[in-house]
Amino acid sequence: MNKLVAKSAAMLGALGLMVAPALAQDAAPAVSPETQYIFNTLLFLIGGFLVMWMAAGFAMLEAGLVRSKNVSMQCLKNITLYSIAGLMFWITGYNLMYTGVDGGFMGSFGPYAFDAVGADALDTGYSTASDWFFQMVFCATTASIVSGTLAERIKLWPFLIFTIVLTGFIYPITGSWEWGAGWLDGMGFSDFAGSTLVHSVGGWAALSGAIILGARKGKYGPNGQVTPFPGSSMPLATLGTFILWLGWFGFNGASQLAMGTIGDVTDVSRIFANTNMAAAAGVVVAVILTQVMYKKVDVTMALNGALAGLVSITAEPLAPSVLQSVIIGGVGGAIVVFAVPMLDKLKIDDVVGAIPVHLLAGIWGTLIVPFSNTEVAYSVQLIGIVAIGAFTFIVSSIVWVILKSTIGIRVTEEEEALGLDKVEVGVEAYPEFGIGGR
Amino acid sequence: MNKLVAKSAAMLGALGLMVAPALAQDAAPAVSPETQYIFNTLLFLIGGFLVMWMAAGFAMLEAGLVRSKNVSMQCLKNITLYSIAGLMFWITGYNLMYTGVDGGFMGSFGPYAFDAVGADALDTGYSTASDWFFQMVFCATTASIVSGTLAERIKLWPFLIFTIVLTGFIYPITGSWEWGAGWLDGMGFSDFAGSTLVHSVGGWAALSGAIILGARKGKYGPNGQVTPFPGSSMPLATLGTFILWLGWFGFNGASQLAMGTIGDVTDVSRIFANTNMAAAAGVVVAVILTQVMYKKVDVTMALNGALAGLVSITAEPLAPSVLQSVIIGGVGGAIVVFAVPMLDKLKIDDVVGAIPVHLLAGIWGTLIVPFSNTEVAYSVQLIGIVAIGAFTFIVSSIVWVILKSTIGIRVTEEEEALGLDKVEVGVEAYPEFGIGGR
Amino acid sequence: MNKLVAKSAAMLGALGLMVAPALAQDAAPAVSPETQYIFNTLLFLIGGFLVMWMAAGFAMLEAGLVRSKNVSMQCLKNITLYSIAGLMFWITGYNLMYTGVDGGFMGSFGPYAFDAVGADALDTGYSTASDWFFQMVFCATTASIVSGTLAERIKLWPFLIFTIVLTGFIYPITGSWEWGAGWLDGMGFSDFAGSTLVHSVGGWAALSGAIILGARKGKYGPNGQVTPFPGSSMPLATLGTFILWLGWFGFNGASQLAMGTIGDVTDVSRIFANTNMAAAAGVVVAVILTQVMYKKVDVTMALNGALAGLVSITAEPLAPSVLQSVIIGGVGGAIVVFAVPMLDKLKIDDVVGAIPVHLLAGIWGTLIVPFSNTEVAYSVQLIGIVAIGAFTFIVSSIVWVILKSTIGIRVTEEEEALGLDKVEVGVEAYPEFGIGGR
Repeated sequence: MNKLVAKSAAMLGALGLMVAPALAQDAAPAVSPETQYIFNTLLFLIGGFLVMWMAAGFAMLEAGLVRSKNVSMQCLKNITLYSIAGLMFWITGYNLMYTGVDGGFMGSFGPYAFDAVGADALDTGYSTASDWFFQMVFCATTASIVSGTLAERIKLWPFLIFTIVLTGFIYPITGSWEWGAGWLDGMGFSDFAGSTLVHSVGGWAALSGAIILGARKGKYGPNGQVTPFPGSSMPLATLGTFILWLGWFGFNGASQLAMGTIGDVTDVSRIFANTNMAAAAGVVVAVILTQVMYKKVDVTMALNGALAGLVSITAEPLAPSVLQSVIIGGVGGAIVVFAVPMLDKLKIDDVVGAIPVHLLAGIWGTLIVPFSNTEVAYSVQLIGIVAIGAFTFIVSSIVWVILKSTIGIRVTEEEEALGLDKVEVGVEAYPEFGIGGR
Repeated sequence: MNKLVAKSAAMLGALGLMVAPALAQDAAPAVSPETQYIFNTLLFLIGGFLVMWMAAGFAMLEAGLVRSKNVSMQCLKNITLYSIAGLMFWITGYNLMYTGVDGGFMGSFGPYAFDAVGADALDTGYSTASDWFFQMVFCATTASIVSGTLAERIKLWPFLIFTIVLTGFIYPITGSWEWGAGWLDGMGFSDFAGSTLVHSVGGWAALSGAIILGARKGKYGPNGQVTPFPGSSMPLATLGTFILWLGWFGFNGASQLAMGTIGDVTDVSRIFANTNMAAAAGVVVAVILTQVMYKKVDVTMALNGALAGLVSITAEPLAPSVLQSVIIGGVGGAIVVFAVPMLDKLKIDDVVGAIPVHLLAGIWGTLIVPFSNTEVAYSVQLIGIVAIGAFTFIVSSIVWVILKSTIGIRVTEEEEALGLDKVEVGVEAYPEFGIGGR
Repeated sequence: MNKLVAKSAAMLGALGLMVAPALAQDAAPAVSPETQYIFNTLLFLIGGFLVMWMAAGFAMLEAGLVRSKNVSMQCLKNITLYSIAGLMFWITGYNLMYTGVDGGFMGSFGPYAFDAVGADALDTGYSTASDWFFQMVFCATTASIVSGTLAERIKLWPFLIFTIVLTGFIYPITGSWEWGAGWLDGMGFSDFAGSTLVHSVGGWAALSGAIILGARKGKYGPNGQVTPFPGSSMPLATLGTFILWLGWFGFNGASQLAMGTIGDVTDVSRIFANTNMAAAAGVVVAVILTQVMYKKVDVTMALNGALAGLVSITAEPLAPSVLQSVIIGGVGGAIVVFAVPMLDKLKIDDVVGAIPVHLLAGIWGTLIVPFSNTEVAYSVQLIGIVAIGAFTFIVSSIVWVILKSTIGIRVTEEEEALGLDKVEVGVEAYPEFGIGGR
């Protein structure tokens, strides 16, 4: 819009104002539908860019937690999966998830189109493009979760093909069951911002991939030894965690889907505060537990404690009191501390701890919703967790198996030893130091 | 909150609206001018801080793409150029660009003053300080572009002096031709958010500098060999790209310049979505092309593909359909993949690929505006590109030549080998590893 | 805008609403109280997430300025202190600072509770949870300041215990004197966004800790030599600075506490611009001074110059003209350049320069308020600086001494040489290069 046009529009508005109040009076809404529309749309835009920023958070977290010979690959995967998610959520995702679900199992096929330029229909209460943008970044988050678990041994292209299926089909279909007003929503299942719909779906897809792909060479010895493969950069992992924490205010806060009334914006505020408290409790619990258990405080556990606290509160960030938020997030932190070594016992090699953080804390968060929200039943929550888990795990496994038996999903042992950066990217992450500098 | 609930609430509001105007005449403004003023100002503030954040993006991108011996220098240059841009856009820039241009070639001289404290005039439709802030960060972006191309061999002070001229004079003068309602605007030239006014201007200034400064020692051999100088940190380059992508939502979205009406905020949303799609397409095209051409996917090309997609859509992020955005951004990605080796053939040493990304994709994006916006003519777009390009290139070259023949612009060969961090900054970027750790 | 003023204005608005439609016309508020409530709350939310992001800025700044053997520890401390601040500001902080102070010395004890879900009372003019969130991140900032100064030799747990006391008691008590409408506010003391209440309080606590803890082994020789211990990563320090600069728009801008009127949002805009100018001036002054004094431009001084400019303008970011902002910030930059070597002469070992940046520039910024705001008296500013400084320094010293004489605050010489990452965290920051890679 040209500046002069804006100016005239504002002036016209000013003239109109002088006439209206004389006639209208108490029929006048406290916040006009147009103003509500703007606020609601703005919430999606702000929430959307905050969640988009989480893509950078995952990239940094993973870049910090893999070894230096695989860092470029994680960077490449993360920017590419975010791009693929955007394209797929346009081509099939949005309509599959939101259009014509109506109590059913999935929506309609076909690419999505935004409002026309300058559209001014009030009927949705917000701009459809802003909603698309906000929902798209959720879809991308799901794919980001998978990337970390499978790092350091999966080939690039099968990973990208899986990302296409996950973001274009799996995520939107299970998503439609609840947020598209599908069958689970009809049953009363509740998942406010996606502990299950986003985080567990990503976690199940990651788990399935980790099992079919197998552990990194040398990670698990024949007699149960577990060899730690320390991440290459703790500050990058910390940065990634802070980015995710920041983005989560958009993730949970804007999932209120409206801020055009006092009640809605107050709820958004409550969600911000509760989200922060759950993450804080996750950190403190992880710090205390690792001190007690290992006599040292593992910084990666503190980081994952924050993330687990965030995932835990995501299914219901509005209803809990502050104390309830602290408990929900704190238990999330504890889950990570206990689950990480447990996964190692099962020889499931999750490079960044995404399965404890996103899958297990996601289940916990979804299950515990009735603790603070009495309108929700534990049994229905369980049905939702199992249904979405089963569908995601089975379909993901089928896709992974097909990929494995066709183009193959794993690099050779020599390539794994050399590092994916040299083999598949051709650009080392740190050519002058670490492996590169030698 | 469930979407359907949100929808019903909005519909109830909408019904209320149908009743009210019946009583209160359709002249009643849906959003009062005061509320519009607040929304418009808020758009500038949010857009402004997002674009300010792009300064950090350029800093990280460049820190990641230069060798470790020059990283401190790039950090120093980026924070200093951002500071200089702020000061110059106050001292001369804003008034040169926006005040009293009126179809002409430049505005008036003199520092800019904001609204008084607590000012409550409605006439502009937004706070002038918010507008200044938003326009200032655009000016800073232009200077950031130059910094990367000339890295690793330019001296600090001539670079800073050039930055003063660029941000205080060159950028505001060419900017006034279009955004200051100058002669190009009068002709019907269209550049929504600055593919030409910001990115190409930065690119032309960088190209001029790269030619006059010459390539880095050892980059181009006598028989056409090109020696790659790999960047020191891919994760930092990736982080920088994600920061820029995030900031671009402010760059393009807030260039709508208003969100106080349903039409405006809906357009802002459309711009967010289109901007994201163009970047996503740029990444995917760059990934596929490098795989096909080199059998490996170069992560730096994926990053620059994102940026080229973003630059390409910047001249017209509103009018395109989703598909058009994908095409515009995808071609941008392809331009980078082909232009980077082409520049090397011409022995133009562009350390970070800023010329393909900002200059070439900026030209592409500006030229292609009529593809989606039929009110714009290809011929006028070409006139704008050539006029702004010629002015910027010629004036920049004059400044560079004067600097070269007076204080000199290039460090000695020994200093270049040693690295600018030791020579000019005195603080190594990584004193314990890489070059520093030896 | 003072909080009490904001509250009254909102109340007047609410009353006005009841009266206005009945009487009609020019009494009708241009922006309805409900819309104002939404805007005010939104300002707290946006400001809050920007200031929350500053926690990441401190983490990166400190990770970049310590040696690689202590980087994991700084990461751990920063995410944990942010978490503790959130918990303590709920358990005791908010009520101590804001509830029932009434001209006195502190508020009431007890945890804080947010609005109920869907609350729609207009009386405060904003959501209380949004206000809590915004005030909480200020509390966390105070603790972040301490962390950098004491790096590389303090033990984890005593630091965390001090953080509990600082965030749960010291900060809220001194804060109540001014922002809780306590005795200093009654005297006319003015500190808009916390040059003294946040930055100096953090600085005094850090100074007290630095003196009692002592310098790092080997930092100061017997004959006055000062051994530089270069930071491990300049790009991370630069990133941290840019994050802090970005966050500061929220810090100062949202301290206006309202944006529901034209006057308020215009003031927020002016604050954004002034804040940016002060930081820019701080950078430019530091760059020029270090060039003149040392013949090289020290990038860490440029970064700290930006931060000092920001701290300086924080006590009064609204009233100054642009030129006054430049002067205030520029003097801040100069303070850092001269104070850093001065502290070394006093053998006060401040690892990241937090004392010059936050304490000294904070005092400067608070003292200079009457330069632009003629309603404020230099004498009262001095009283506030001294009172808050004395209280914070004395109470902090008592806590540090108690900690030192009980659990001890310092690692052994061997542990210090080995690095805190190996000793207390068990996770090296860069296991493959630097110290780790050897």
